Amino acid sequence: MSTIVPPAVPSATLDHQFSLQNLPYGIFSTAEIQPTVGVAIGDFVVHLKNISDLLLNEVEGLTIEDIDSATLNSLMSKPSTTWKSLRACLTKHLSTPAFPTSSLVPLTSVTMHMPAKIGDYTDFYSSREHATNVGIMFRGVDNALQPNWLHLPVGYHGRASSVYLSGTDVVRPRGQLQISKDDPKQGSQHGPCKLMDFELEMAFFVGGPPSPPATPITMAEAEDRIFGLVLMNDWSARDIQKWEYVPLGPFGAKNFATTISPWVVSLAALEPYRAETSAGPVQTNPSPLEYITDPNYSSYDIALSVSIQGPSMSSPAPVSRSNFRNLYWNVKQQLVHHSVTGCNMQPGDLLGSGTISGQDETSYGSMLELCWKGTKEVKLGDTGEVRKFLRDGDTVVMEGGCGGKEGVGRVGFGEVRGKILEAGSKVVKGEGEGVWKQA
Amino acid sequence: MSTIVPPAVPSATLDHQFSLQNLPYGIFSTAEIQPTVGVAIGDFVVHLKNISDLLLNEVEGLTIEDIDSATLNSLMSKPSTTWKSLRACLTKHLSTPAFPTSSLVPLTSVTMHMPAKIGDYTDFYSSREHATNVGIMFRGVDNALQPNWLHLPVGYHGRASSVYLSGTDVVRPRGQLQISKDDPKQGSQHGPCKLMDFELEMAFFVGGPPSPPATPITMAEAEDRIFGLVLMNDWSARDIQKWEYVPLGPFGAKNFATTISPWVVSLAALEPYRAETSAGPVQTNPSPLEYITDPNYSSYDIALSVSIQGPSMSSPAPVSRSNFRNLYWNVKQQLVHHSVTGCNMQPGDLLGSGTISGQDETSYGSMLELCWKGTKEVKLGDTGEVRKFLRDGDTVVMEGGCGGKEGVGRVGFGEVRGKILEAGSKVVKGEGEGVWKQA
Ligand SMILES: [Ca+2]
Ligand SMILES: [Ca+2]
Ligand SMILES: [Mg+2]
Ligand SMILES: [Mg+2]
Ligand code: NI
Repeated sequence: MSTIVPPAVPSATLDHQFSLQNLPYGIFSTAEIQPTVGVAIGDFVVHLKNISDLLLNEVEGLTIEDIDSATLNSLMSKPSTTWKSLRACLTKHLSTPAFPTSSLVPLTSVTMHMPAKIGDYTDFYSSREHATNVGIMFRGVDNALQPNWLHLPVGYHGRASSVYLSGTDVVRPRGQLQISKDDPKQGSQHGPCKLMDFELEMAFFVGGPPSPPATPITMAEAEDRIFGLVLMNDWSARDIQKWEYVPLGPFGAKNFATTISPWVVSLAALEPYRAETSAGPVQTNPSPLEYITDPNYSSYDIALSVSIQGPSMSSPAPVSRSNFRNLYWNVKQQLVHHSVTGCNMQPGDLLGSGTISGQDETSYGSMLELCWKGTKEVKLGDTGEVRKFLRDGDTVVMEGGCGGKEGVGRVGFGEVRGKILEAGSKVVKGEGEGVWKQA
Repeated sequence: MSTIVPPAVPSATLDHQFSLQNLPYGIFSTAEIQPTVGVAIGDFVVHLKNISDLLLNEVEGLTIEDIDSATLNSLMSKPSTTWKSLRACLTKHLSTPAFPTSSLVPLTSVTMHMPAKIGDYTDFYSSREHATNVGIMFRGVDNALQPNWLHLPVGYHGRASSVYLSGTDVVRPRGQLQISKDDPKQGSQHGPCKLMDFELEMAFFVGGPPSPPATPITMAEAEDRIFGLVLMNDWSARDIQKWEYVPLGPFGAKNFATTISPWVVSLAALEPYRAETSAGPVQTNPSPLEYITDPNYSSYDIALSVSIQGPSMSSPAPVSRSNFRNLYWNVKQQLVHHSVTGCNMQPGDLLGSGTISGQDETSYGSMLELCWKGTKEVKLGDTGEVRKFLRDGDTVVMEGGCGGKEGVGRVGFGEVRGKILEAGSKVVKGEGEGVWKQA
């Protein structure tokens, strides 16, 4: 656990989101530097290629491709021992005054890119409160939490190609909408989504060598197969979802865009913030099946927030505060269950947590829940603005981080941000890989 | 339409599955040739690199990477005009006696590989008969065909990493099984799937340059964005599926393996076999929404069969005969609907048709339907063997092709084949990329 301020980077104080405890990985570029691997520290990015002699010399198994590529996939594909050695090596050198400041690039001068080429993207549904809330609204109180929910982390495969980077403008989708609210037999019409929503999520990247078919990952192996976490906004078109999702799950309501934050935070960084899940120290009612029982059942205390900035507002106003602890199934259980039938997991796969809602209605992770299916207005701070679902021009900002623990550096995730453009808008490639902007 | 036998390849008669009308693309290798692009003709493969001077000279926009790569992704990413010119060029030269036979490699000497790196894999559910049959069994007659089914091609995202090549041995998955057949509230146990099944499907590869976000493909554009079709077996663990699929769709019941055939057949090859769908010349009850109305509503007359060979049998016995025409939603409609909300489609994406069941019970595309949920036995020819679901050691073979049209060459897809190994078996990489075999 890192409790010092690195002498060569005085901005990296304990309460900086990129303290020495954090050391998140990302892909950055500048006017002079092509997209490559960096590690955030204070107000800077360590350009790893710049200290490659030192790293390749001290970290067993590390190759130049791991620290100088346009994605993190090569580094992710290495065994966890390599990531851990790399972290230890960076921590050691950043703790000395001799750390080469020539390798530091100011954060203000960098453009961020997609951290990885995502092979497959999966989204879970692991907040009991969210599943219950949505269940009540879509299926009624009697069928809210399905019988399987407490026995396995329910999840579905999503669309990998439309996972974009923070900063991407999201065009309001058009799709099929049920004509009559209550009678699906009246059919559908084609038009712009009227119930545009976000979902406050986190997601992790799978790490380690690709697993062969028919080789489930065990609970004991799981932590070594999780490279790190990011914030995620799983944009959702509620009206399209309602009509299409029976019986095979959400499709067009989700596959137009998902946005992630650029910095990937390791489990090692989060370790001091390990915490009980909001379900308590153990899952007992029911106990999970053995393959998915976590003897160290726990989560991480990551404070999360969602803010909305309408077109006429000068800054985003918070609408929800939640916590990563509000997930009943943890990341290890998600990964283990994903592979239980033999699904081959690959470095660079992205596994989303599901919407992270807490018990309190101020902690709900979607507008669907915050406005309770349109039955109440959500205030945007004291601006006088209210929302039920998202309007064109609204920017949604999600932030997250761990902190406040005596003597331990903060571990921040930065933000994931996106603006809704009106249906039919065109977008073009933005500055960073994975970023799309209004044309 | 090609009605001649190529002079330099006398084996490519009109009734050869790889007649001059077909010209399917695949990735092949031999002891001397690294994996590269080939075109099947009669009993041979044309090694395209070997005639690259000729092809690059005559086909506008074609690059060496398109015809000499370990995947078809580069060729797929070219506009359809390039594929069409390439086909015309190959047809022209194969029609002359001067065709360089030095470029021909005997089919018997080649190893086939995955035709493409699949970015995202989606599976539709477009046979009305299959959806109705499964609906009756899983949800009862009253909710069999959901209200949305006739309005849109229902589909779900699948797992791209576990799409394997024909010949792959499939290990019976372990997963969560509902304890009581009728009462989900009694929970689940972990064990080997007892209701192992196949699904007879076809699938197409998306072609053309990647589409940007928020740019739906129109019905007029769709044909130019379909590179070609393969046979597909969507292996399915029915008991795992039953327990897990509510409310977000199938997950572990499907993501352990999907197998495709190696030769990719273009729509141009299929054109002479264009035919009415089994639903008739037009969709009227209801009429589809405008964006998904196909003014040339039709399908292709591709005869399909499924055979099973038990461990003690000397050859596979047919259990089902169906036809690609038995799909209510055609490939164009599937692609258009997939992108309607703005999902960015990419060359190399694989879109499965859904199980292709016809009206007659001999044309059902899964054991679930053939044994009607275990209520009757399916005879394996006159061997005396019967099945409800698949047993360890069973090999499933699916074949497909068009033929029998006066003066038009046959267009065959070859086969997709796979053997079930007992739960817990280990597999290792086989000879071809994407093939896994018992260890
Ligand atoms: Ca979600
Ligand atoms: Ca299927
Ligand atoms: Mg999404
Ligand atoms: Mg499958
Ligand atoms: Ni995928």
